[in-house]
Amino acid sequence: DDHEAMDSDDTWLPSLMTDTPQEGFALAVTLSQKGVGTTQPDAEVRKAQRPEYAEEPDSLIAASHVIATHFQTVAAANDYWRE
Amino acid sequence: DDHEAMDSDDTWLPSLMTDTPQEGFALAVTLSQKGVGTTQPDAEVRKAQRPEYAEEPDSLIAASHVIATHFQTVAAANDYWRE
Amino acid sequence: DDHEAMDSDDTWLPSLMTDTPQEGFALAVTLSQKGVGTTQPDAEVRKAQRPEYAEEPDSLIAASHVIATHFQTVAAANDYWRE
Amino acid sequence: DDHEAMDSDDTWLPSLMTDTPQEGFALAVTLSQKGVGTTQPDAEVRKAQRPEYAEEPDSLIAASHVIATHFQTVAAANDYWRE
Amino acid sequence: DDHEAMDSDDTWLPSLMTDTPQEGFALAVTLSQKGVGTTQPDAEVRKAQRPEYAEEPDSLIAASHVIATHFQTVAAANDYWRE
Amino acid sequence: DDHEAMDSDDTWLPSLMTDTPQEGFALAVTLSQKGVGTTQPDAEVRKAQRPEYAEEPDSLIAASHVIATHFQTVAAANDYWRE
Repeated sequence: DDHEAMDSDDTWLPSLMTDTPQEGFALAVTLSQKGVGTTQPDAEVRKAQRPEYAEEPDSLIAASHVIATHFQTVAAANDYWRE
Repeated sequence: DDHEAMDSDDTWLPSLMTDTPQEGFALAVTLSQKGVGTTQPDAEVRKAQRPEYAEEPDSLIAASHVIATHFQTVAAANDYWRE
Repeated sequence: DDHEAMDSDDTWLPSLMTDTPQEGFALAVTLSQKGVGTTQPDAEVRKAQRPEYAEEPDSLIAASHVIATHFQTVAAANDYWRE
Repeated sequence: DDHEAMDSDDTWLPSLMTDTPQEGFALAVTLSQKGVGTTQPDAEVRKAQRPEYAEEPDSLIAASHVIATHFQTVAAANDYWRE
Repeated sequence: DDHEAMDSDDTWLPSLMTDTPQEGFALAVTLSQKGVGTTQPDAEVRKAQRPEYAEEPDSLIAASHVIATHFQTVAAANDYWRE
Repeated sequence: DDHEAMDSDDTWLPSLMTDTPQEGFALAVTLSQKGVGTTQPDAEVRKAQRPEYAEEPDSLIAASHVIATHFQTVAAANDYWRE
């Protein structure tokens, strides 16, 4: 499914709207991974890298920063899920 | 409780609204940790890493940056807790 | 086509408006690459570097962060593709 | 006083509002330090690290970046102290 | 002309307004270089450094990130060149 | 004058308003340096570090990023100096 996600002919981002903040956070994670997948489209290489950086605290913090940046966008798009 | 926090079936982010700025800051910390937990879902590995990066000033500053980014989002969501 | 993209006489950014979020994400990728191309205009050098950083998880995360920053801009420009 | 600042039972962030931009900057510094203190709650360890990173230009620049990010939030909260 | 650009007596930033997004991007590049020039005002030193970091993918990505940050500002200033 | 700038009893930031974008950029530089000065208050140490990081392209790019972040704040405060 990693491969599928990187196939640019597919629609993978139909909307920034989500029902809940938690789904918005999950979308931010997807966007972050997509950014990585754009530069390294080979899902096998990405899978091989994962054990390496998942053990590296600084890489985890950097990945968390990218998610935070996308979450800003998704949260603003959803008007912060205010009621 | 780290494990529980990473269980994606649970609701861990029902809202971005908090009563006070201080609770908003605590939520920003949670969001930052969640971003790390998404990439490294094994709570045991994360716990093992903590002593390492908690001794490393640059890692602490980077973690503080992620919190700052999430705090921007939470603060905006709460209209900066203006009265 | 990398070369063409860097030729500053060409119009490569007529608008920030896109029809869909997904096209907006693609534009954010283009803007990120353009930022790299501005500093290193030689497409041959950039092509030679790609294998190197595409194998480096930290570089991929950093590239994803730049995309995220540009996506904030493109998404705001499009009013988050709200309907 | 470092210890006190990290005691989560105390109220340390009653408001983002400040009278002047300069006090807002000081609050941004406090928020940055708080982010570090959350990850490394031991004030003795933090004090021991200070000489190390205070001599390291890159660490100082990174710390300044975190302050800048929080200052964005505090400045927006105060509507930029416009009159 | 690098030297001229750094002469603080000259007006180099009369406005953030540009006619097109592409000119806005070019302004973001100028602002990024200006930030570097402020810290290292010697144009000869900067020219000598260029071959070094232009070969370094991580430096190129970091430079692209600064451009992205300035482009956010310039794009907002121009109301995203909406018509 | 570095020393004076760091003396917290002085008013060094009376306002975020500037007459021109260029003065706003200069203020962003001041804010960035202030962030560094807060962590390393000894002006002599900072002066001794300058030759080191001013020769280091990555440090210059990182410093430029901090300036860009503060410039976002100052530009927003001034409503982008729109007329």
